[in-house]
Amino acid sequence: MGFITLITDFGLADGYVGAMKGVIFSIAPHVTAVDISHAVPAQDVHSAAWILHTAYDTFPQGTIHCVVVDPGVGSQRRAMAVQAGPYVFVTPDNGLLSYVLAQQPLQMAVELTDPRFHHHPVSDTFHGRDIFASVAAHLARGVPLDELGTPIDEPVTWPLQHPERDSEGVLVGHVLHIDHFGNCITDLHIRSEKGVLLLTNPPSEGADPLLIARCRACIKVGGMLLQGVSCTYADGRPGEPLALVGSSGHLEIAIVGGSAVQALGLTIGDPVILLL
Amino acid sequence: MGFITLITDFGLADGYVGAMKGVIFSIAPHVTAVDISHAVPAQDVHSAAWILHTAYDTFPQGTIHCVVVDPGVGSQRRAMAVQAGPYVFVTPDNGLLSYVLAQQPLQMAVELTDPRFHHHPVSDTFHGRDIFASVAAHLARGVPLDELGTPIDEPVTWPLQHPERDSEGVLVGHVLHIDHFGNCITDLHIRSEKGVLLLTNPPSEGADPLLIARCRACIKVGGMLLQGVSCTYADGRPGEPLALVGSSGHLEIAIVGGSAVQALGLTIGDPVILLL
Amino acid sequence: MGFITLITDFGLADGYVGAMKGVIFSIAPHVTAVDISHAVPAQDVHSAAWILHTAYDTFPQGTIHCVVVDPGVGSQRRAMAVQAGPYVFVTPDNGLLSYVLAQQPLQMAVELTDPRFHHHPVSDTFHGRDIFASVAAHLARGVPLDELGTPIDEPVTWPLQHPERDSEGVLVGHVLHIDHFGNCITDLHIRSEKGVLLLTNPPSEGADPLLIARCRACIKVGGMLLQGVSCTYADGRPGEPLALVGSSGHLEIAIVGGSAVQALGLTIGDPVILLL
Repeated sequence: MGFITLITDFGLADGYVGAMKGVIFSIAPHVTAVDISHAVPAQDVHSAAWILHTAYDTFPQGTIHCVVVDPGVGSQRRAMAVQAGPYVFVTPDNGLLSYVLAQQPLQMAVELTDPRFHHHPVSDTFHGRDIFASVAAHLARGVPLDELGTPIDEPVTWPLQHPERDSEGVLVGHVLHIDHFGNCITDLHIRSEKGVLLLTNPPSEGADPLLIARCRACIKVGGMLLQGVSCTYADGRPGEPLALVGSSGHLEIAIVGGSAVQALGLTIGDPVILLL
Repeated sequence: MGFITLITDFGLADGYVGAMKGVIFSIAPHVTAVDISHAVPAQDVHSAAWILHTAYDTFPQGTIHCVVVDPGVGSQRRAMAVQAGPYVFVTPDNGLLSYVLAQQPLQMAVELTDPRFHHHPVSDTFHGRDIFASVAAHLARGVPLDELGTPIDEPVTWPLQHPERDSEGVLVGHVLHIDHFGNCITDLHIRSEKGVLLLTNPPSEGADPLLIARCRACIKVGGMLLQGVSCTYADGRPGEPLALVGSSGHLEIAIVGGSAVQALGLTIGDPVILLL
Repeated sequence: MGFITLITDFGLADGYVGAMKGVIFSIAPHVTAVDISHAVPAQDVHSAAWILHTAYDTFPQGTIHCVVVDPGVGSQRRAMAVQAGPYVFVTPDNGLLSYVLAQQPLQMAVELTDPRFHHHPVSDTFHGRDIFASVAAHLARGVPLDELGTPIDEPVTWPLQHPERDSEGVLVGHVLHIDHFGNCITDLHIRSEKGVLLLTNPPSEGADPLLIARCRACIKVGGMLLQGVSCTYADGRPGEPLALVGSSGHLEIAIVGGSAVQALGLTIGDPVILLL
């Protein structure tokens, strides 16, 4: 018993994901393998880190998350396994765990140096199959994390993107991710508490959360001015743009029954200005 | 043991489907989760209803089909679980079961009002994760349907599309669905019995099935005149359009080795005229 | 227990793959079904054969590989089950096993003529559901291969593509497959042995492997001249084309951080010239 999830940029048109699963089931035939996404844009580690962040903690404790978006395959970047909170992660050490390690305590990180747990011969070009899938399966069979190789003090993480204040003191968030529906998810993290909206990552670190009035807040984005924070995607007429708090707790720009990214011409990094 | 199938319009590029599965396995770790499709066009409930119709009854009795295409998420549309024949369905009450309920007797329908079976905190925007996946998993663990909430008398269904007779008495069917290959599936439902083709849903309700002569029937579609109903996709020269009875028992327009929708420029709703 | 893998050109937008899985689980509820790819280009048996080749032998012995890319569905092509080495294959007899049977000894091949193991009524147009999935599931339940129908002496195979020598004696390989990243995989099969690269399928059959000097070899492709065979995709500056040995042991043309097929305008069959 046990779960291994997979996130890669390998797509579903080739045999690459199949080969990873073949290696996994050859080592750990009783594991449940779960695809999270194989449609990460090629080599886009930021997108993969975000996708992992939105799904990993819905899984049972002990789940092994294997994330392979690896522009540096075969180079000197380290391969690692990490225990963080109740989950295990098997990934290249290239920042993929940046969101996770902001939420979960790092307990142990190990570089995958012990060849006993690799699939041989190890190719130079497909560590997803030969190292990451193989190690994930050995972990699922019960191999202790610290047997996999030598300890790593500190996995690579990027500073997470935060809202800023511009020179006039205005709160500026940014588009972090664009989803399948064309919704634009921002770095404005919002908690709803007793019916009140709170911006929990305001610009000055350590600052108290900022109160947001659901009806009175104004959002400037892509040349539009949106009045208020809606509750749902259906809170308007078809074609109308709106702001709402998405399923991961981030402010999101959407179009009722349509694609915000198309209608507003947004791209990742674009400003989303919040007037409280 | 047990099966939960998933049909959504969430795509496979984000973590949404992964989050649904995480919730499912956290509640019911022994269930088998089966993807039917996550590539339903965004918010296209008609397409989702058709896809469900073509696959649901191949599954073992007791399978729980979780279908989340939900333009009204967060609004007043009801979330429900339905026992119909030997299957259970967990969906928004927006017509997704229209085909199923034309085939299976409705035994019980319940609005998902009991928060004990939801994933908390319940977001306003992702009931796929917080209500539908969670309830499907609780059902798989053995929670009785009638504990999930309050009874619903009659789930929403649309009238299914039927062939018509035009003012000159000619039989007019319509394109219902366009599949991955570009085959155009129509609302002309045909049964093959002892080598004879019968149109089982002729225009006047309650009318007897109409006999179709496989070789002599003539089909007018997209400015072409097709002679006869072929047996297989290979019944012609490459590039040749043909009519045949598809795998769900509906008359289908196809191109040998090609895409009918491209070659004939068809869209959903277009007429397909049957001259017997 | 047991594994059934699936490769089809059915895509993931319809209910076709779901219907195959429904049939499989209705017959063999304890089997693990694993998707290898459903994004084979429509009716492209060569691509499907390659994808199968890159993944099949990572799976546990006894795995049943069900491959349905079937331009001749309903016609006179045979449906078959094949034992080859430790694996079983359930496919149309149209060459899909060409790579596999070059690697694994053919032990038994049977035409799927016994209707007891089919899903009834058998449609003319969807043997993936009614014959191949159904037979794969019966095999997983333990039905012996030779009970499925009548023996086949020799399944259809194509001659595999090999490098050639042109009139001036120059070694000419060809693009075999283009993957999700735009990498162009060639028919130049290379083994790395004690740090030495060997071309193991040189033009004259039975000829000894040819030695390749990693640094001195020169590759002409798409109007470019590439110096040396790199070890990894990261062996160059972003945008730089390079040649390397891919994960299946074939010479591959790639662009660092980009798509070789786009940058070099290659298509399947294009020459890749190797100057030793």
